[in-house]
Amino acid sequence: MKFFEDIAIGERVELGHWHVTAEATVAFARRYDPQGFHLEETEAAKTHFGRLSASGWQTAAMWMKHMIAHRDRVQAEMRARGEPVADMGPSPGFTDMRWLKPVFPGDRITYFTTATEARPSQSRPRWGLIRHLNEGVNQTGDLVFSFIGNVFVERRDA
Amino acid sequence: MKFFEDIAIGERVELGHWHVTAEATVAFARRYDPQGFHLEETEAAKTHFGRLSASGWQTAAMWMKHMIAHRDRVQAEMRARGEPVADMGPSPGFTDMRWLKPVFPGDRITYFTTATEARPSQSRPRWGLIRHLNEGVNQTGDLVFSFIGNVFVERRDA
Repeated sequence: MKFFEDIAIGERVELGHWHVTAEATVAFARRYDPQGFHLEETEAAKTHFGRLSASGWQTAAMWMKHMIAHRDRVQAEMRARGEPVADMGPSPGFTDMRWLKPVFPGDRITYFTTATEARPSQSRPRWGLIRHLNEGVNQTGDLVFSFIGNVFVERRDA
Repeated sequence: MKFFEDIAIGERVELGHWHVTAEATVAFARRYDPQGFHLEETEAAKTHFGRLSASGWQTAAMWMKHMIAHRDRVQAEMRARGEPVADMGPSPGFTDMRWLKPVFPGDRITYFTTATEARPSQSRPRWGLIRHLNEGVNQTGDLVFSFIGNVFVERRDA
């Protein structure tokens, strides 16, 4: 993780792509979200989705996977350059989580994160609070998923 | 699903329990949230969690699982009584998602939902919008997870 002071506000960072498959869609749905339109093509055809679609919680969990993979890549690069790496603290919570369009098998979802605000913590001087807008965009450019996150990030002088 | 008109505002409904295991914690983390404190007891011991803890996204996805199981039970009872069952529409989004305490293997998380507001949709007369507070509480009574959801529910006279 970059240190609080080094995070560029307003820079939209690409985290990676999720290539959605029917197998992964159904496997997640069986375990966590067993609704017809996430489980079976024929059931899904009868609903407002029209075809098999991924659980919104899978789209959210996949954002996390890509965020962590991105963070690990950035940290590996920093360590390779001999730079210190910042700690990431807990998150005080997320808000405005929206599933704007269905996500279908065959889709390619690209995840982005944009730090929108940086605020030093008054009560916890080791940490700063970063507010970030997170997005999932499909292969035709439609925004399918977004939320606003908050996370504590270690300060350089901590 | 009950019809919009039949949902009792303010009634806290228990959805079920999640018995958290180390195996399920690690399996979810490997797939969606591969951070040390979700993957390995020894890594977790070095962090602010102190021990292996579940991904917040697993706590969220498990809420969904218990919500759907509850809905399916209610619908089965309604059908057994010969009553019509309402459609649940899409969700315009969730907000104020908070992970208030860590969730550890061995914990028993009880999920609740409370409808807090019912508003007929002006633009979509078939539907009403239900706002609901959702909670996860551990075996010692600590609130570990909460968020506010919104969902369209079919109206009885639609």
